[in-house]
Amino acid sequence: MTNPTAAMLVIGDEILSGRTRDSNMHHLAQELTGHGIRLIEARVVSDDHNHIKSAVNALRAAYDHVFTSGGIGPTHDDITADAIAAAFGVSVGVRADARAILEAHYQRTGLELNDARLRMARIPDGAVLIENPVSAAPGFTLGNVHVMAGVPAIFQAMLAGVLPRLTGGDPLLSQMIDVDRGEGEIAGALGELAARFPDLSFGSYPYIRNGAHGTQLVVRGTDATQLDAAMVALSRLVGGQD
Amino acid sequence: MTNPTAAMLVIGDEILSGRTRDSNMHHLAQELTGHGIRLIEARVVSDDHNHIKSAVNALRAAYDHVFTSGGIGPTHDDITADAIAAAFGVSVGVRADARAILEAHYQRTGLELNDARLRMARIPDGAVLIENPVSAAPGFTLGNVHVMAGVPAIFQAMLAGVLPRLTGGDPLLSQMIDVDRGEGEIAGALGELAARFPDLSFGSYPYIRNGAHGTQLVVRGTDATQLDAAMVALSRLVGGQD
Repeated sequence: MTNPTAAMLVIGDEILSGRTRDSNMHHLAQELTGHGIRLIEARVVSDDHNHIKSAVNALRAAYDHVFTSGGIGPTHDDITADAIAAAFGVSVGVRADARAILEAHYQRTGLELNDARLRMARIPDGAVLIENPVSAAPGFTLGNVHVMAGVPAIFQAMLAGVLPRLTGGDPLLSQMIDVDRGEGEIAGALGELAARFPDLSFGSYPYIRNGAHGTQLVVRGTDATQLDAAMVALSRLVGGQD
Repeated sequence: MTNPTAAMLVIGDEILSGRTRDSNMHHLAQELTGHGIRLIEARVVSDDHNHIKSAVNALRAAYDHVFTSGGIGPTHDDITADAIAAAFGVSVGVRADARAILEAHYQRTGLELNDARLRMARIPDGAVLIENPVSAAPGFTLGNVHVMAGVPAIFQAMLAGVLPRLTGGDPLLSQMIDVDRGEGEIAGALGELAARFPDLSFGSYPYIRNGAHGTQLVVRGTDATQLDAAMVALSRLVGGQD
């Protein structure tokens, strides 16, 4: 398993109060899987300086990459850039290149680049900007931490710019099969199969379809040959021929 | 702020691989807010014994309540009960009361209570069962940790059974107003208002509707009088009369 590892940090009171349903985590999970990077952990924290700082420091030490969403807008509760700078122990301020991007954008749109909007040019020292093709205000990468917006359209556009920069691992492959039995019926045999293929991961997800219980079995791994062998064994198993 | 605090721990490879979109966090957030309990943090971890154990121990020490979802089914990757027992340093095994619930259920449905299904009666010592009106297999509360299923219909039913047992705080109230300006236009004044009402939380969420930029402003708190005063001030502010 040589795939790089990653964590996500979702920042925002609105997720934890139930006002907003986060959708960036699911998008990131799918994109990372396609890029051969394993998402190992995700956390959601509120707009609290110390909480963001300690979560960033815990996650960046434990994983190859950390992806954050939220808290980089113009309002008083957008404190992610300052918290990230504090986590790294570097200073943060309005940076000329980020300011130039905002100036060009607001000149084009005829709106004023006021003090609040200028907050979006606050970038920690040493960070590389992440382009925002939707609304100009950039994200940034500092060390192994990629800081992106919470608005889903902007998060997705920023991630599309970041991912090609990162070294992926072997693609994470998966195959699945639906079985018209409850998972309790096949759990024993599935466990034995999982023990025979220790490099693969076997998941079992119950569902009810047209009133009948069934189970979706999913096998994941990076070795296509092993994956094929496991699926053959699995098909025999659930077909009762093994 | 005398409201009890809470954290959520979502357990499951399928969330982190992008196969499944978690919906229990959003449901829990809304239910806790209605019950006067503040959800302060959420984490998602994979089906890994040590990772579950360390996350449970970190969260149960930091918050009044921890709610977990996932990993209590019949298959080899359902390891939550064992990880919770390890976190508390108590033993775990098939318990008579849980077994009786499963026996009655499978007798009713005509299915076999095999070894795999019997795993769902593994309950840590000292835990109190949480009823499962959907599919019988119970969750449990151990100390301040409430362990529930990952299937949304079952998670919701279990939570409905647990919440009335817990002491809530003052209801968390919120009021909102939509403004047809970008958040950068009103951010400065909003920040000043937030400083005037330190016990309230002010959120600002940009949207695009029919091609026009707007912002939803949300004020949250437990003091209805303060909340009303803040909304009056906010309405003047965005109406330009202040």
